[in-house]
Amino acid sequence: MINKERLLYDTIRPVSWQNNGLRLLDQRQLPKKEVYLDIPSTQALYQAIKDMVVRGAPAIGIAAAYGAVLAAKEVLADQTNDFDKAFNAKLDLIASSRPTAINLFNALNTARTVVKTMTDPLNELLQWANEWLADDIRANLAMGELGASCFNKKTRVLTHCNAGALATGGYGTALGVIRSGVEKGLIDKIYAAETRPWNQGARLTLWELEKDHIPVTLIADSSAAYLMQQGLIDWVVVGADTMCMNGDIANKIGTYSLAVLAKHHGVKMMVVASTTTLDLSAKTGKDITIEHRSSAEILPDHYSSELVDALNPVFDVTPATLISAIVTEKGVIESPDVRKMAVLTQ
Amino acid sequence: MINKERLLYDTIRPVSWQNNGLRLLDQRQLPKKEVYLDIPSTQALYQAIKDMVVRGAPAIGIAAAYGAVLAAKEVLADQTNDFDKAFNAKLDLIASSRPTAINLFNALNTARTVVKTMTDPLNELLQWANEWLADDIRANLAMGELGASCFNKKTRVLTHCNAGALATGGYGTALGVIRSGVEKGLIDKIYAAETRPWNQGARLTLWELEKDHIPVTLIADSSAAYLMQQGLIDWVVVGADTMCMNGDIANKIGTYSLAVLAKHHGVKMMVVASTTTLDLSAKTGKDITIEHRSSAEILPDHYSSELVDALNPVFDVTPATLISAIVTEKGVIESPDVRKMAVLTQ
Repeated sequence: MINKERLLYDTIRPVSWQNNGLRLLDQRQLPKKEVYLDIPSTQALYQAIKDMVVRGAPAIGIAAAYGAVLAAKEVLADQTNDFDKAFNAKLDLIASSRPTAINLFNALNTARTVVKTMTDPLNELLQWANEWLADDIRANLAMGELGASCFNKKTRVLTHCNAGALATGGYGTALGVIRSGVEKGLIDKIYAAETRPWNQGARLTLWELEKDHIPVTLIADSSAAYLMQQGLIDWVVVGADTMCMNGDIANKIGTYSLAVLAKHHGVKMMVVASTTTLDLSAKTGKDITIEHRSSAEILPDHYSSELVDALNPVFDVTPATLISAIVTEKGVIESPDVRKMAVLTQ
Repeated sequence: MINKERLLYDTIRPVSWQNNGLRLLDQRQLPKKEVYLDIPSTQALYQAIKDMVVRGAPAIGIAAAYGAVLAAKEVLADQTNDFDKAFNAKLDLIASSRPTAINLFNALNTARTVVKTMTDPLNELLQWANEWLADDIRANLAMGELGASCFNKKTRVLTHCNAGALATGGYGTALGVIRSGVEKGLIDKIYAAETRPWNQGARLTLWELEKDHIPVTLIADSSAAYLMQQGLIDWVVVGADTMCMNGDIANKIGTYSLAVLAKHHGVKMMVVASTTTLDLSAKTGKDITIEHRSSAEILPDHYSSELVDALNPVFDVTPATLISAIVTEKGVIESPDVRKMAVLTQ
């Protein structure tokens, strides 16, 4: 049972603009240390996204929006003749940091468009980026309400990876729904999967729920099926790194596994993501690029022979047919398909 | 592609009787260090099984068989009047070390029976324990042949946990089938799941396959579904800690998950275990006790508040309906059920 009175929400800001600069919470060091890094340049931002100082599709998108401010600053300091060309080149660098989270490209492409109408790019881009961040938090609060309304009884939820305040501007997508559910007294139990190999669940989700005084129970990824078999899970609630126009989604490796297991056990599957996570050019999951990261992230130090290697895909695609509900700030789409998803672009 | 000429099999002996004493390979220290521990007493053996110095159902069974020799030695040294009572009490202690692997109880109960007919318990029990070990290796070699005969083309296998030489007397159950398949040129690719939280796959399976010059690719447990979705797996091959009379089996946590995923993707599921892993008193998986271990095995050090805990079941039950084939030394049982399993007790 969750103690509602002890809640203190919405205190975590992984991406912010402070003292005229971009500041990121270094998520590699959590839960041991809460360290904030100043990101002085587009080059430094490229490296920070690549190295996962900041992670989570919406948070990467927000960092990229502020990256456009850094880009404008650098281009103006260079006093180049062709602002657009130089600006776009710097945004291209940021875009090359990671391939799967569509929010990165959506934020950068929006910046490329809006900058064209600006007379004072530096200040106007900063205003735009602040608004991008504020929109994200507003969307998360709205999705929290909408998603929690799907719980028609005291609910046992399992979440994967970290789709919380740390992955967004604040409050979170999947964890936003869970926070809202806790606030409404609708959550009976929260299980967090540790989420190998980067342990976003064990390191980040536990950290931020503990910070908000919300009880949580960690499990190994591979015990989710056992819990479902025992009838201990009602809903799997996750975020998304990309949503396709037919309702297929990409999310952290292991999400597809949970979706298949949920279907087998009659457990419901909720995906929570704002419309900034839509890829208008992706008809189905086949159009999504899945990032593979270094085998060093998973292989124990001991091995160096060529006989031993590792395969480290860090996202997977869950087809719409396995999803009970997609929750965006525009509403809840049950059993998503191409027709129902179309309302999101109207 | 696996280079057949570089194979050197069957070199690993996790449990042995040397210099008149029981010696165990300390599996907690692999792959970093290959350290052997002398186990001087039944009390020390109880602790070694509990702490997972030795693990894997058949290896635990063999260690317990030698534990009966240690028990006889201790009882004879005590010069007690009631040998049977004192002997059984020492075996009860060993039996209380871990609850799920049936081989532990089968070995100890066999010792309780055979000792009654012995005139020289110490030497005769040692002979019996040596035979228990030799039988295990013979069964593994037979199962290797039988299991590999199920592969009708160059096969891509996924194995979970460590059901190898390290989990048995030698050669392995699931890894015995894989070794035999490699020898016959029938294996195209071996994936090993890291197997959280104890990392038997990452630490032990990789170590022993590398030692035998067999190439292997490590994956995070939760990427198995992704690999199946991509059509990269033909067979999941695992061991068992208990087999029930209807063909349900208990094995390392995550096995049930793989079985559900295999079914969903049309991937075949093979369970390899000798008849010493049969629980004659277990009609179905409901009769199996699932061990839960300390949350400290999975929870990061950072957390100490009562808000954060962990659930750490270390086995799960896979129903017979999800199993394509059970391989024992007596033959291959396809689509196991209570009628087909009955041949194993004849």
